[in-house]
Amino acid sequence: MKQLLKISAAIAGLVALTSAAGAQDAAPAVSPETAYIFNTLLFLIGGFLVMFMAAGFAMLEAGLVRSKNVSMQCLKNIGLYSIAGIMYWAVGYSLMYTNVDPNGFIGSFGSYGWDEAGKFATGDDGAVAGYSTASDWFFQMVFVATAASIVSGTVAERVKLWPFLIFVVFLTGFIYPIAGSWKWGAGWLQTMGFQDFAGSTLVHSVGGWAALVGALLLGARKGKYVDGKVVPMVGSNIPLATLGTFILWLGWFGFNGASQLALGSAADATSVSNIFANTNLAACGGVVAALVLMQFMYGKLDVTIALNGALAGLVSITAEPLTPTPVLAILIGAVGGAIVVFTVPLLDKFKIDDVVGAIPVHLLAGIWGTLIVPLTNSDASYGVQIIGIASYAVFTIIASAIVWTVLKATMGIRVSEEEEAIGLDRSEVGVEAYPEFTFGRG
Amino acid sequence: MKQLLKISAAIAGLVALTSAAGAQDAAPAVSPETAYIFNTLLFLIGGFLVMFMAAGFAMLEAGLVRSKNVSMQCLKNIGLYSIAGIMYWAVGYSLMYTNVDPNGFIGSFGSYGWDEAGKFATGDDGAVAGYSTASDWFFQMVFVATAASIVSGTVAERVKLWPFLIFVVFLTGFIYPIAGSWKWGAGWLQTMGFQDFAGSTLVHSVGGWAALVGALLLGARKGKYVDGKVVPMVGSNIPLATLGTFILWLGWFGFNGASQLALGSAADATSVSNIFANTNLAACGGVVAALVLMQFMYGKLDVTIALNGALAGLVSITAEPLTPTPVLAILIGAVGGAIVVFTVPLLDKFKIDDVVGAIPVHLLAGIWGTLIVPLTNSDASYGVQIIGIASYAVFTIIASAIVWTVLKATMGIRVSEEEEAIGLDRSEVGVEAYPEFTFGRG
Amino acid sequence: MKQLLKISAAIAGLVALTSAAGAQDAAPAVSPETAYIFNTLLFLIGGFLVMFMAAGFAMLEAGLVRSKNVSMQCLKNIGLYSIAGIMYWAVGYSLMYTNVDPNGFIGSFGSYGWDEAGKFATGDDGAVAGYSTASDWFFQMVFVATAASIVSGTVAERVKLWPFLIFVVFLTGFIYPIAGSWKWGAGWLQTMGFQDFAGSTLVHSVGGWAALVGALLLGARKGKYVDGKVVPMVGSNIPLATLGTFILWLGWFGFNGASQLALGSAADATSVSNIFANTNLAACGGVVAALVLMQFMYGKLDVTIALNGALAGLVSITAEPLTPTPVLAILIGAVGGAIVVFTVPLLDKFKIDDVVGAIPVHLLAGIWGTLIVPLTNSDASYGVQIIGIASYAVFTIIASAIVWTVLKATMGIRVSEEEEAIGLDRSEVGVEAYPEFTFGRG
Repeated sequence: MKQLLKISAAIAGLVALTSAAGAQDAAPAVSPETAYIFNTLLFLIGGFLVMFMAAGFAMLEAGLVRSKNVSMQCLKNIGLYSIAGIMYWAVGYSLMYTNVDPNGFIGSFGSYGWDEAGKFATGDDGAVAGYSTASDWFFQMVFVATAASIVSGTVAERVKLWPFLIFVVFLTGFIYPIAGSWKWGAGWLQTMGFQDFAGSTLVHSVGGWAALVGALLLGARKGKYVDGKVVPMVGSNIPLATLGTFILWLGWFGFNGASQLALGSAADATSVSNIFANTNLAACGGVVAALVLMQFMYGKLDVTIALNGALAGLVSITAEPLTPTPVLAILIGAVGGAIVVFTVPLLDKFKIDDVVGAIPVHLLAGIWGTLIVPLTNSDASYGVQIIGIASYAVFTIIASAIVWTVLKATMGIRVSEEEEAIGLDRSEVGVEAYPEFTFGRG
Repeated sequence: MKQLLKISAAIAGLVALTSAAGAQDAAPAVSPETAYIFNTLLFLIGGFLVMFMAAGFAMLEAGLVRSKNVSMQCLKNIGLYSIAGIMYWAVGYSLMYTNVDPNGFIGSFGSYGWDEAGKFATGDDGAVAGYSTASDWFFQMVFVATAASIVSGTVAERVKLWPFLIFVVFLTGFIYPIAGSWKWGAGWLQTMGFQDFAGSTLVHSVGGWAALVGALLLGARKGKYVDGKVVPMVGSNIPLATLGTFILWLGWFGFNGASQLALGSAADATSVSNIFANTNLAACGGVVAALVLMQFMYGKLDVTIALNGALAGLVSITAEPLTPTPVLAILIGAVGGAIVVFTVPLLDKFKIDDVVGAIPVHLLAGIWGTLIVPLTNSDASYGVQIIGIASYAVFTIIASAIVWTVLKATMGIRVSEEEEAIGLDRSEVGVEAYPEFTFGRG
Repeated sequence: MKQLLKISAAIAGLVALTSAAGAQDAAPAVSPETAYIFNTLLFLIGGFLVMFMAAGFAMLEAGLVRSKNVSMQCLKNIGLYSIAGIMYWAVGYSLMYTNVDPNGFIGSFGSYGWDEAGKFATGDDGAVAGYSTASDWFFQMVFVATAASIVSGTVAERVKLWPFLIFVVFLTGFIYPIAGSWKWGAGWLQTMGFQDFAGSTLVHSVGGWAALVGALLLGARKGKYVDGKVVPMVGSNIPLATLGTFILWLGWFGFNGASQLALGSAADATSVSNIFANTNLAACGGVVAALVLMQFMYGKLDVTIALNGALAGLVSITAEPLTPTPVLAILIGAVGGAIVVFTVPLLDKFKIDDVVGAIPVHLLAGIWGTLIVPLTNSDASYGVQIIGIASYAVFTIIASAIVWTVLKATMGIRVSEEEEAIGLDRSEVGVEAYPEFTFGRG
């Protein structure tokens, strides 16, 4: 059947070429092979930009935890990215995309995109919308790593290493891919008309729910909530957190831009460009809203809130970065920034100890971004968006809770009080992050 | 009219195609739609590389200020990039490019590049030189952010946050765009034949003049110049400054390379490649010149001067990265590196307190780079280059002085002596950069 | 002759076009000019990704040395990258590629790729495999910088600056290019059938051998091996080392992916994609293998070993990133990770003081990657691979030994004991890396 597709695409290409040569009312089309290269290149460029987000999360989190837990955070991040890559190759990609029924909610344990030799199949190079299978896998794989990175920040400073990594195995091999199949795998939510362009819900909220469940089952860090008061535990390295934010911002151009999934026509190139512009403007809106609100509310400007404002703006526009006008993109991002300002203290009220603020940024701004899609995209409806958001919530909460609970019951998920006090770097990693210039404060 | 253009471009494309098919003396041309995709892709890739320079400036400055002012510097950088994005969308892009008279010096408050719905217009996809409007906006926007970043470093460690951000509003919304319209907006300096390929003057000197005026109106940091002696105030984190420099170097391939503005032909691809090579070689020349000069003059090799040597080499080649031979690119960059070695002490002599050395790097090397264009580009003349440099100087100095002076008179631009002493992180941001491992030295 | 090539390529292009228009069994080909743009773009994108690896090495090394030697490491890295650029333009590129005899082992001091004016020649834009000469130079140049970076880490904390930089002059201008000419310059090893896709041996082992010779001639750091015991000298900044590793991982997509050397056909785009996927999976395999082995062997998880595991996985797949299936890519990388775990202690046994672990990562994993090529690539044979590996070993060891020995005999290559004790930052650079928050421990 692939062969048939190729031949018909070739014919279509020839027709386009012939009509271009014979008529004077159209510019020559992009040839299918040229389009294949462009589409593939988009995935590769988008993919390496999103891959670099792994560094962004690592730096953001290394900057926002206390110095005694920094090496652990680095180790968790390179570990989770590596596990995500292997799991999404071994099972995830197939579970997400193989033979998902239009009313279905899971793919199959197959070998999606593999040829007989176990390599990635070539892709359909005779089709205008063709692209290399391996490039698509690469681009999808870095998304699942993003979801795992979100969890890493929230549960920092008290989670054990191996249970965390095992959770990542399940998240990246099963939970995320199954959830992804509902929409991007063309399952029941796609059939219903749910819209989530680049993953405000599929990536960010899924990661956020998994993080929230982890935080609840782990409990807060020792000493965080004492006698009804919130004890500040400040990040150890603000420029690293800033660098991480800028890297994430950079990566987001790949995240949203390459989610157009095609660059083989002028129309696609234009769409990718508009997505770049809107993505950037939403982040700008998030920062400015956070700054202005902080000034009015507190009179001081917490730089970490400004950083999270940028990220919340980015998450907010991710569900629909194409259809909003620039002014709406700014406003959608600004609401994301406002969400951060208002909900970071709220989580503390509920004694939910989210070390880096990932829940406001990824979960809450992700919900907001998904909810607002129908404002600019007439293919979306508020009802279906709510069904989608709720379905992802229920599934991810239950699935994550099962995995975290089994891990807690078997190997335990939290380090001992003594280990937490001396820091995970010494107790679990054996390597201090800054051996020469820390002195135990904090 | 756009429609007419499209049709004629389509005809041109067909003619090219037909002649390719009929004659044997030419390879088939790149189709207009394919060229549109390439051109747009160049802007997007160039744009994200230059966007990442915001991180480069943030790290460079965070590394070169004292630890008590690092969070402030991070906040200023993410703030200025966000404001630049919004202002350049709201007014700047239009002021720079809408209906600039060939003898004019300003565009108009219009909606350049917007369609009726307020979105970015599609761009002319039937033309060989076509590209998406949003991709062009994105690429131009990151340039204005660069100009603002230059100011940020010079005025560090004593400027108040909000006055600085308000200055950025005016710089990115008005001063830079108006100045830009003279040349890149096809105004009077373009008509006169002034040459500045990627912005040695339009970006770097404009930023540098605005920084210089700020430094003069702010005055030096408390304790910097005492009893006729210069008190060293050394940077707190050299590897961050090094990282920032490498990120800027990386970004410069986008800055200069994508300023070719087209990738839709073999000739354009060749030009972009030559620009990459020359850009790299100029930076190499800047570093090596700085190293050798320091060895002869001081016997010790200040790493921060080497870093600034790289940047000065890059700024020097920015006015004309295409026409020089590689050996001239190395020499042009080397002079830039020498400028840094000689002028950093000079500024101290005049008690101009430029915290990160942005004035030698961006202003002086920018002037040098602009002056030397006629050596390799016969379209340029020394007289016109001098006129251009002087015009940008006068305009930017006056405009910046007005904005800085009004800010000084109204809200004040400098923190109090006590706030400066305890550091801006505690007084303005409320977040220390390294709370666990600083101890107040410096 | 270039002209002849162009005309024949144009004819070939026309034939392709005509047959596409006349027959119905093929999609229209990519036009030669479009292919030229794609090929050039691949080099430019690959080139800037590999260029950024200079920042990766700088951060990795800055993080793994003690704080008193960090500025020196930053200076060495920006210095070596600058020297590599100039030397590879002045002599290296020509020595590697000009008129290398099929049985030869050196190019010539010519002006490879230069036109009469001393500029980079245009490149053959009428050929399907055409590309801009400057883009090729840029891509090749960043490889030689990588080889020099490898040396920098091993000899850290005791080498003098200028002798090191002079060694870099010879390595990047002569040793690497001559060695490169044997295979990539189409000399005797290419004729014999030696396979090294992106440089496990040509780049990484060559750098590794040069580093090993340097380490032997320098001797270990004072106090490293005392009374038969190995004194740990731990890195000063783990998040920087982590960042460096992620940057290197990112850059490797350019390193391996663009070594396909063409993007002008669907087949090439597919190959580049498969290389991306395999490159990523091999790194994942390296990390996971290192984690699991460390857990079983030591019960604690040294984050620096995990980082080096990623790099060893990347080096291992570099000799052949295209032909392995994904599962083999994971395994090849995993063996690389295991090599790091087992050989880092081994080096200490032989009192070879390799500060950052570059010898296991680049030399040993490079040998492994080169050896295993015949498993998946039928064009390779184990015998020839061994001949290649041995030849590069012998040549690089002898050439490096000559340069290092002459430097040692003339200017000396090692700082004095006092200078080593107070650190190179104060003795050679005059700038402390973290002046406000170190206190001489370590």
